[in-house]
Amino acid sequence: MSEKFEKLKVLVGEVADLNALQALAEWDQQTQMPPGGAEARGHQVATLSSLTHQKFTAPEIGELIEDVKKELADADPDSDDARFIKVLEKDYNQATKVPADYVARFAKLTANGHESWAKAREASDFSIFEKDLAEIVEMRKEFVSFFPPKDHPYDTLLDQFEPGMKTADVQKIFARLREKQVELLKAIADAKQVDDSFMHLTYPEDKQWDFGVEVATKFGYDWKRGRQDKSVHPFTTSFSVNDVRITTRFMEDYVSSALFSTMHEAGHGLYELGVNQAYERTPLNGGASLGVHESQSRMWENLVGRSLPFWEHFYPRLQELFPTQLGNVTLGAFYKGINKVEPSLIRVEADEATYNMHIMLRLELEIAMIEGSVAVKDLPALWNSKMEEYLGVTPPNDAQGVLQDIHWSFGGLGYFSTYALGNLISVQLWEKINEAIPDLNAQIRAGKFDALLGWLRENVHVYGRKYEPQELVQMATGSKITPEPYLRYLETKYSEIYGL
Amino acid sequence: MSEKFEKLKVLVGEVADLNALQALAEWDQQTQMPPGGAEARGHQVATLSSLTHQKFTAPEIGELIEDVKKELADADPDSDDARFIKVLEKDYNQATKVPADYVARFAKLTANGHESWAKAREASDFSIFEKDLAEIVEMRKEFVSFFPPKDHPYDTLLDQFEPGMKTADVQKIFARLREKQVELLKAIADAKQVDDSFMHLTYPEDKQWDFGVEVATKFGYDWKRGRQDKSVHPFTTSFSVNDVRITTRFMEDYVSSALFSTMHEAGHGLYELGVNQAYERTPLNGGASLGVHESQSRMWENLVGRSLPFWEHFYPRLQELFPTQLGNVTLGAFYKGINKVEPSLIRVEADEATYNMHIMLRLELEIAMIEGSVAVKDLPALWNSKMEEYLGVTPPNDAQGVLQDIHWSFGGLGYFSTYALGNLISVQLWEKINEAIPDLNAQIRAGKFDALLGWLRENVHVYGRKYEPQELVQMATGSKITPEPYLRYLETKYSEIYGL
Repeated sequence: MSEKFEKLKVLVGEVADLNALQALAEWDQQTQMPPGGAEARGHQVATLSSLTHQKFTAPEIGELIEDVKKELADADPDSDDARFIKVLEKDYNQATKVPADYVARFAKLTANGHESWAKAREASDFSIFEKDLAEIVEMRKEFVSFFPPKDHPYDTLLDQFEPGMKTADVQKIFARLREKQVELLKAIADAKQVDDSFMHLTYPEDKQWDFGVEVATKFGYDWKRGRQDKSVHPFTTSFSVNDVRITTRFMEDYVSSALFSTMHEAGHGLYELGVNQAYERTPLNGGASLGVHESQSRMWENLVGRSLPFWEHFYPRLQELFPTQLGNVTLGAFYKGINKVEPSLIRVEADEATYNMHIMLRLELEIAMIEGSVAVKDLPALWNSKMEEYLGVTPPNDAQGVLQDIHWSFGGLGYFSTYALGNLISVQLWEKINEAIPDLNAQIRAGKFDALLGWLRENVHVYGRKYEPQELVQMATGSKITPEPYLRYLETKYSEIYGL
Repeated sequence: MSEKFEKLKVLVGEVADLNALQALAEWDQQTQMPPGGAEARGHQVATLSSLTHQKFTAPEIGELIEDVKKELADADPDSDDARFIKVLEKDYNQATKVPADYVARFAKLTANGHESWAKAREASDFSIFEKDLAEIVEMRKEFVSFFPPKDHPYDTLLDQFEPGMKTADVQKIFARLREKQVELLKAIADAKQVDDSFMHLTYPEDKQWDFGVEVATKFGYDWKRGRQDKSVHPFTTSFSVNDVRITTRFMEDYVSSALFSTMHEAGHGLYELGVNQAYERTPLNGGASLGVHESQSRMWENLVGRSLPFWEHFYPRLQELFPTQLGNVTLGAFYKGINKVEPSLIRVEADEATYNMHIMLRLELEIAMIEGSVAVKDLPALWNSKMEEYLGVTPPNDAQGVLQDIHWSFGGLGYFSTYALGNLISVQLWEKINEAIPDLNAQIRAGKFDALLGWLRENVHVYGRKYEPQELVQMATGSKITPEPYLRYLETKYSEIYGL
């Protein structure tokens, strides 16, 4: 390696160290910190993040990137070195193309925006948030202007979370989802509803914790390189390939919450734990995108965790832990209960069959806002009519409608579709995995997950951020991201559960 | 406030933020981090600490200190502003007077030194550590040369941990301690030994935890601004006046360990929690010195926690938690047991009556090493003869003798005496407190500690680092640090326990 490349690696490694400490400060705040520490922590995080930004955006790094790019002109473009520079250059551009003045103005606006959103939601009155959101949309358009034009202005926003993804691709995917999922939901609505009332009995927290740990352990989560804590909102964070931590939350009267969120976060954790060790302290560490990340969490949560084979193995143990709650609930009834489909108002409570519809609605509104074809003031009405159209339910107020998500208040336009893309990718991979491991169901039924995890490691995890999502999915499955496998999966699964 | 002072406060506040994050990274490593995270954490801490050093030693800070000093020339030298600058200037000099080359060489030497010390201790062979220790002593002499000469070269080392303290003062104090404590120990050795075998029964950890939390809560430890975790070595750390965390450890077959270490760390914690809120993110936050800090931890551990009135209140509860272990042990027997005096080889296991002797021995050897009047190779023999002289016991090997402490391996010469000074200060304050609160014993007997804590807050805690230890002790007690109160205390307490 050249002297310059070595120098660059040192500098970039130090930035990775500081980013890890930033993540540690946030993890601590969410899981350990006594409330008294909040004010000081705010200062600490602000100081560190400004210092990290300063260090990362130093002209020296830009110059070294240019120099090393020249040195690598003849290298294999798929080599780790070439990809290191490619990913780093993109990160560097993201960090440097946006003027400091814009960053400061946007931080101020979104701080206000978050406040007005919270007030608006509290009062269930969109008009309180309207002005800030309109400014946020304008500033997101300004953000787009700092980057070279793409096919669609929304592409630049999407690219932040789903590198390389195009608005047109996403629109095409969602058009197909709309057509088929709305149809499926209508059929389910006409069928006999399943019962899940037993999920809402009282489930003591300590036993929920134990069960979650047992499952995550069986999945292959390595407790020597991770840990689990409680937090208000479950999340996964990583300070190193060898220190990846997950959190969960408990609702004593809704056992599904911890049950599936633990599997979900374990899925995220397994991804980060499986990245090539050589990528530690480099830009190649981490997940390919939010969508690919979500494909991993949703796979373990839904394709594994809400499957019949999984519960054929684990249900006796769950019954043993909760004899009064589940002793009289058959495996079949339990399986149907945890897969109940019910159009609802709130995205975060949505099931597998309705979830994408919530995303589609948001995506359509975001694109329209950025195109300027929808005025911010018209959002509540549009929201409600789309809810009626896609899910057959109408929000009684703004709090349960257009104001439910925090994302827009911090300017996170472009984020939502990653959730749905994750669902699609998960099943695309799943079909491939079932070809590669023909007895996968039997293995799951036996509580064995090593072949599954091995496949994911080899075909997804190990690559970290080396490939963009579309490249990675193409390599792993032979095609780009497509909704067909997911639609097949939904139809098969729910036809059987609802006897369609 | 002038613009320059404001600018300086901003810069120094940012350094405080980074120091807090450094402390957080270390706390996490000791209490939460899975083992896999260790390597990455090493990089993170190294990067952050070098960045913090760079930021703090920037010439801009030195210039601003000079400018603000001039601005404050006519200000009250005891005002917070004047003290802010005085303490900051001292910290800045400590950080800048030592050449970077020296810092790097010393870091390398002590890394080796730590390794050779660990090996030497493992093999119980001082010769393995001898060469590195000799170099460490030479480099500590070199360190002294970077600062203006004081009365004694050891003063500069002492000053790092106990600002303003002189070698001559410490020697005078210890001469008096030697005379009286050796005499007391001889008398105790001739008396009938007390029984503490019941402390070595099996005590379940969860109940030890509960009792410790109950006691710390009664002391006034604020769980909204702190928390307790387990660690291999108990410690207290602080990321803010409002986020001060303690740790403890458990030995199931030695209940004293967690019992008194929890009170000890709670004492440190109460100190840091009591510092003036206005000192947050300034050089005035923290404790006056290691010795003053130790005076607080030892007060709660020993003067409160090993007193009869304390156990008159808490012993019934302890018996309730451990009925099989303590049901048949009377309060009187328990009180004697926890105050058993037994000359032993190991400092960290020493009781109140023997502890200072361990310190004295180390202090004498350190001063002699810095003076050059003792050769490093002669340390083991000297150690053993002093152990015999002061405590009447002779180490059977180097591991239980001269190699037992880690401090010299990282170059921490000047550190040890702070432990003994803490003992002395604690009783000096205690006598004053008993004058101010005549019914203190009755309050403790009733489990009430608010008047005690109030006095400590008002006379010690609130000042943070504003005053040097001798100033602070003078203000609080009317005299400088003196051994007489401690000697009176020992004599009264142990005469009664051992019927001397």
